[in-house]
Amino acid sequence: MTDVDPELAKLYKEFDANGLIPLWTEREDLMPATPRPAAIPHRWRWTDLYALAQRAGELVPVGRGGERRAISLANPGLPGLPHATPTLWAAIQYLGPREVAPVHRHAQNAFRFVLEGEGVWTIVDGDPVSMRRGDLLLTPGWAWHGHHNTTDRPMAWLDGLDIPLSSALNTEFFEFGPDTLEDRSQPARSRNERLWGGPGLRPLSATSSPSKSPLAAYRWEFTDSALTAQLELEDEGYAGVAGPGHAAVRFTNPANGDDALPTIRTEMHRLREGASVPAARESASSVWQVFEGSGAFVLDGQRVEVGHGDLVTVPSWAEVAVEADTRLDLFRFSDAPVMERLGFYLTDATNPAARIAPATPVNPARP
Amino acid sequence: MTDVDPELAKLYKEFDANGLIPLWTEREDLMPATPRPAAIPHRWRWTDLYALAQRAGELVPVGRGGERRAISLANPGLPGLPHATPTLWAAIQYLGPREVAPVHRHAQNAFRFVLEGEGVWTIVDGDPVSMRRGDLLLTPGWAWHGHHNTTDRPMAWLDGLDIPLSSALNTEFFEFGPDTLEDRSQPARSRNERLWGGPGLRPLSATSSPSKSPLAAYRWEFTDSALTAQLELEDEGYAGVAGPGHAAVRFTNPANGDDALPTIRTEMHRLREGASVPAARESASSVWQVFEGSGAFVLDGQRVEVGHGDLVTVPSWAEVAVEADTRLDLFRFSDAPVMERLGFYLTDATNPAARIAPATPVNPARP
Amino acid sequence: MTDVDPELAKLYKEFDANGLIPLWTEREDLMPATPRPAAIPHRWRWTDLYALAQRAGELVPVGRGGERRAISLANPGLPGLPHATPTLWAAIQYLGPREVAPVHRHAQNAFRFVLEGEGVWTIVDGDPVSMRRGDLLLTPGWAWHGHHNTTDRPMAWLDGLDIPLSSALNTEFFEFGPDTLEDRSQPARSRNERLWGGPGLRPLSATSSPSKSPLAAYRWEFTDSALTAQLELEDEGYAGVAGPGHAAVRFTNPANGDDALPTIRTEMHRLREGASVPAARESASSVWQVFEGSGAFVLDGQRVEVGHGDLVTVPSWAEVAVEADTRLDLFRFSDAPVMERLGFYLTDATNPAARIAPATPVNPARP
Amino acid sequence: MTDVDPELAKLYKEFDANGLIPLWTEREDLMPATPRPAAIPHRWRWTDLYALAQRAGELVPVGRGGERRAISLANPGLPGLPHATPTLWAAIQYLGPREVAPVHRHAQNAFRFVLEGEGVWTIVDGDPVSMRRGDLLLTPGWAWHGHHNTTDRPMAWLDGLDIPLSSALNTEFFEFGPDTLEDRSQPARSRNERLWGGPGLRPLSATSSPSKSPLAAYRWEFTDSALTAQLELEDEGYAGVAGPGHAAVRFTNPANGDDALPTIRTEMHRLREGASVPAARESASSVWQVFEGSGAFVLDGQRVEVGHGDLVTVPSWAEVAVEADTRLDLFRFSDAPVMERLGFYLTDATNPAARIAPATPVNPARP
Repeated sequence: MTDVDPELAKLYKEFDANGLIPLWTEREDLMPATPRPAAIPHRWRWTDLYALAQRAGELVPVGRGGERRAISLANPGLPGLPHATPTLWAAIQYLGPREVAPVHRHAQNAFRFVLEGEGVWTIVDGDPVSMRRGDLLLTPGWAWHGHHNTTDRPMAWLDGLDIPLSSALNTEFFEFGPDTLEDRSQPARSRNERLWGGPGLRPLSATSSPSKSPLAAYRWEFTDSALTAQLELEDEGYAGVAGPGHAAVRFTNPANGDDALPTIRTEMHRLREGASVPAARESASSVWQVFEGSGAFVLDGQRVEVGHGDLVTVPSWAEVAVEADTRLDLFRFSDAPVMERLGFYLTDATNPAARIAPATPVNPARP
Repeated sequence: MTDVDPELAKLYKEFDANGLIPLWTEREDLMPATPRPAAIPHRWRWTDLYALAQRAGELVPVGRGGERRAISLANPGLPGLPHATPTLWAAIQYLGPREVAPVHRHAQNAFRFVLEGEGVWTIVDGDPVSMRRGDLLLTPGWAWHGHHNTTDRPMAWLDGLDIPLSSALNTEFFEFGPDTLEDRSQPARSRNERLWGGPGLRPLSATSSPSKSPLAAYRWEFTDSALTAQLELEDEGYAGVAGPGHAAVRFTNPANGDDALPTIRTEMHRLREGASVPAARESASSVWQVFEGSGAFVLDGQRVEVGHGDLVTVPSWAEVAVEADTRLDLFRFSDAPVMERLGFYLTDATNPAARIAPATPVNPARP
Repeated sequence: MTDVDPELAKLYKEFDANGLIPLWTEREDLMPATPRPAAIPHRWRWTDLYALAQRAGELVPVGRGGERRAISLANPGLPGLPHATPTLWAAIQYLGPREVAPVHRHAQNAFRFVLEGEGVWTIVDGDPVSMRRGDLLLTPGWAWHGHHNTTDRPMAWLDGLDIPLSSALNTEFFEFGPDTLEDRSQPARSRNERLWGGPGLRPLSATSSPSKSPLAAYRWEFTDSALTAQLELEDEGYAGVAGPGHAAVRFTNPANGDDALPTIRTEMHRLREGASVPAARESASSVWQVFEGSGAFVLDGQRVEVGHGDLVTVPSWAEVAVEADTRLDLFRFSDAPVMERLGFYLTDATNPAARIAPATPVNPARP
Repeated sequence: MTDVDPELAKLYKEFDANGLIPLWTEREDLMPATPRPAAIPHRWRWTDLYALAQRAGELVPVGRGGERRAISLANPGLPGLPHATPTLWAAIQYLGPREVAPVHRHAQNAFRFVLEGEGVWTIVDGDPVSMRRGDLLLTPGWAWHGHHNTTDRPMAWLDGLDIPLSSALNTEFFEFGPDTLEDRSQPARSRNERLWGGPGLRPLSATSSPSKSPLAAYRWEFTDSALTAQLELEDEGYAGVAGPGHAAVRFTNPANGDDALPTIRTEMHRLREGASVPAARESASSVWQVFEGSGAFVLDGQRVEVGHGDLVTVPSWAEVAVEADTRLDLFRFSDAPVMERLGFYLTDATNPAARIAPATPVNPARP
């Protein structure tokens, strides 16, 4: 800006010297017509991730301090930050044969989703939980947890946490536990599953309802069966699917029906071959992983092919559609519960007007 | 009262003529120190009930108008009323070979608990639900329902409803449906189970949370497995049982974790041989049925033997203890959710003082 | 019934001997198409009530045991019971010059509404609360309370409680307090008002939200002002009234916005001269008192004149309309929160079909 | 790091090329033992702010595009960002004689707190709301609003919004309204106050409970009176104050008792001369403004003097104490409701252990 009033320039300098910033030069950036996330839609190939994780397995030990051999998706729109979206952290975690990840706990909420393999047990508050293909395993905030691989083969899986949200809100707490795991037992079913894993059954000994799910394992056999049932019901002419050819379930806290974690929504989707999820926007960000099959995401109009294990980030208000080339099973997690709890959740279906960018965004000149 | 002031006697007559009743002569009855239910603790023998139901099966047809061949427990403390407790209705329902109970719906909430047998399907809002030993089946208020027996053997089960509560509150609504059942299919698993029967899994198509359970069948295999697990956890030294040697689960609405029905709590209990439920009082009434095994109820100090199928009513604030002679499986339903929702729930543990009757209840003389 | 099968007659006798009642002979009474309350719509004249209360003031002392000089409305449809409706108790309470009603507490929820007069203080959990014309004063369940008249004139008011509900549910608890009141101070504003009486203001010291209102006094000046404002807004063309010419407010718990008492809804209504409340039914019962003005209630089609202080009971599903001959101020209390919390609340507007009685209610003959 | 394994260095480069970041080099930064906000405790002097705002008033017009003459507090720990804390935006807004700030709406929640002056009306969803000394005025998310100064004197006040939170979550929506205000009426009491401003009174016409306060103005007379009452109650020996010599109220939504805005807690505090708020930490950030009086904040051990209008930011987990040299009235707003709704709220009182930094935070070397 060449012709700035020298008085105004002086004023702006004094603003700066006094720890002040004028709204009128920033208004449109601070308050855009619709969300303008810095994060971008992006796809990571599982084969790339896995190969790099494998090499890390050879070069980097797992142990106290670093805590986990986890490699985070770093959204290209958020340079230098290990954030998949502004609120969600996603990583491939790799544990070599017989390796142990030491015990710790943190305020951040965490889950693991198992793309393939088995033989690792995660010990959640002292309760050994087996990790197997297709399972969703929870580590709610402040639960102690460590992992150990009981086999001679490495195992890798998806880790999801609300680390970026917790960082943005400055609500991090962390504590180290014992360096070694005492309980190396390998039960097929964890104690939390034995107590809370019956459909609609609540132990009478639970006198209050935990705000975070007391069920730490959502097994693939149940998820698969629920998705299969929805598509069969569709074939039979009954309600149940989320959309045509599209079955989907949400993982919930059996004690209160809320999302399994208070800050992260977790879902499993299944599309029939040829089916699709129509284009939509929501004021929430999400990460998808292909569990099985192949197809494409259409992200703000750009088609991106995906196959087994591939990960896709969808920032807030990005338009996303999904197309299934084969039968396509997709795991998804998002920050929608955050938006719902704060009154910020909106979709272009509930407010089509919000979809349209305003005609004349005008910010006064900055000197 | 011989020497009543004639002025007072005249006043009381005028009260009566004007539709008025003085509090001071009624105060203690209206507001006793602790509940004084007219209903009494009572036991009904299943063998008696079944024999009478069988005879009713021969003499009384099932059909439009009477609607159901159900024989209600009539608490001896509530003469002339078919009420098990002041809020709960309990009955044995008997359906002969190939019989059909016609379709209707009502505001009252209902369930069936199956002591023995199989082969009947109940059609809940058009969804055929099989009834088998140990199952709990729901018919939430205003859901259409009819039953049909697909076999050549009769079948009998326990019906539980909130009829007395609904009568006391004058909230009854009832509507006849078709006289015949169109859908005579016999699926092992009902559609509601296929949609809502996965542990912690919620169909994405459910955009709001029903206040009454969308799951209409709680199968014995899951209940049994949950009770078994609690006792095994106790053996292993872990938390989970409701008390020593006492496993128990509550049946809940998977959409929100509340009681399966808004007015009726339903539970299954298992006592090890020799175990007991210690004596306690609560400001809620309940009905128990022995599912398997034998033992005794101690009701306000009176010991009553119970065996297979026997039913016991426990009014509000009656003291109840249970003793298991063999392994003892017990189904229980109560009106505790009503008390909790209205702020009236109290136990002698939460308020021991309330247990003690006041020293000098004095009501002024009534003329 | 003359030709009853002797086998059937024998069966019915055995039912009776075994504490059993068949459903099929009772079905229609137990489960009518729409509520059939025994309670009836009825009007009590305040002048009659007051005159009788006055005479009771001369003949009956207030003291320990009887506790209160309260004269209950006894619904003519519920003979022998001091119940205004099946769930609500309503009475005129009369306290002579300098009299004291002793301290007690009970699980039942209570309020007082002051038609006229002043000079009595009710001490709620040790907090003296003045009672003045138009005020609503609360005594939530289990709060200690006693009253004393500080003047040389008698005072009478409306007492409302959930005694019949509590009796029906067997949830009564009662405890005597000291026979005399120690704190005879007469503050214009009680401590609870000073803490909770600011609009939208919550003391930071309240770390949890009481389920019963912590505000014990709703003063007429605020109620009057709110009603006036609604009608002025209507004149100005803005939203706010409950209906044309009909202003109305609900008294709520400032800590959570719920009804002031968990089992009793309390409201104040104002109709302009000539305005009316259109005919409607709801599955809830209520009691109205005329505070000021005159008009009529149309109860199931019957027109009943009302004036200052008159009380009207409206059972569940009775059709009620109100017509204002002059400006008409009405206090109303009902059991609607009970119905809402239990899932039983329905109006003929939300379910017009329920209004229609079924064509052919047919109960099989009773022997 | 000089001796990094070349293989490892190569791996890290490939991570970078693939949009990946290893956790083990970042773990401690991402998951510190306790929050390590970049934002710092800081004080702004009102006299400085006001002088600069005044000069802006001379140099910068208010109008469409820039929308408001608001000057944001820019936390020195968050360079370049107009954020008071990571979630809260705070500004002095200045409106010259007869000026108009045009109508717009946004998803972000907003309030104004008036330090001094009067004569401006803010039009909230078409409802003119006067702004006077000590008042808190709300503009909940998506409510239309514009302001106009009806006097010949300028007026300045504090604006608070959740802009940084909304930016972090990418949930911004914004829409321009008309450029001019049609309704220039100047009622002393707005329509929302007339409908919702009675203590515990809810208009019957409100059939559901808005999640954002329907009351847009919390008047100083009520706030002042509530604070005065708490200190008087303390003098009289009764409960009510937040701490010794420390009165405090929270501004709440009268429809449900929640915080007035879903993302921002607003409070008014009063300390007696010589009283103090003891040192404490919480996992929430806040901004304080001195309304009247003088004293000091002790921020992580550093004493900072404050007087009329001065503003202080307190990041998450900073230790803050307040000392009153004179009677000290303080307005405060914070993001505590966000933390509570997401399960992240913690204080050093509820978890003293979290106060202690862990002994050996060890991050493996980054190449």
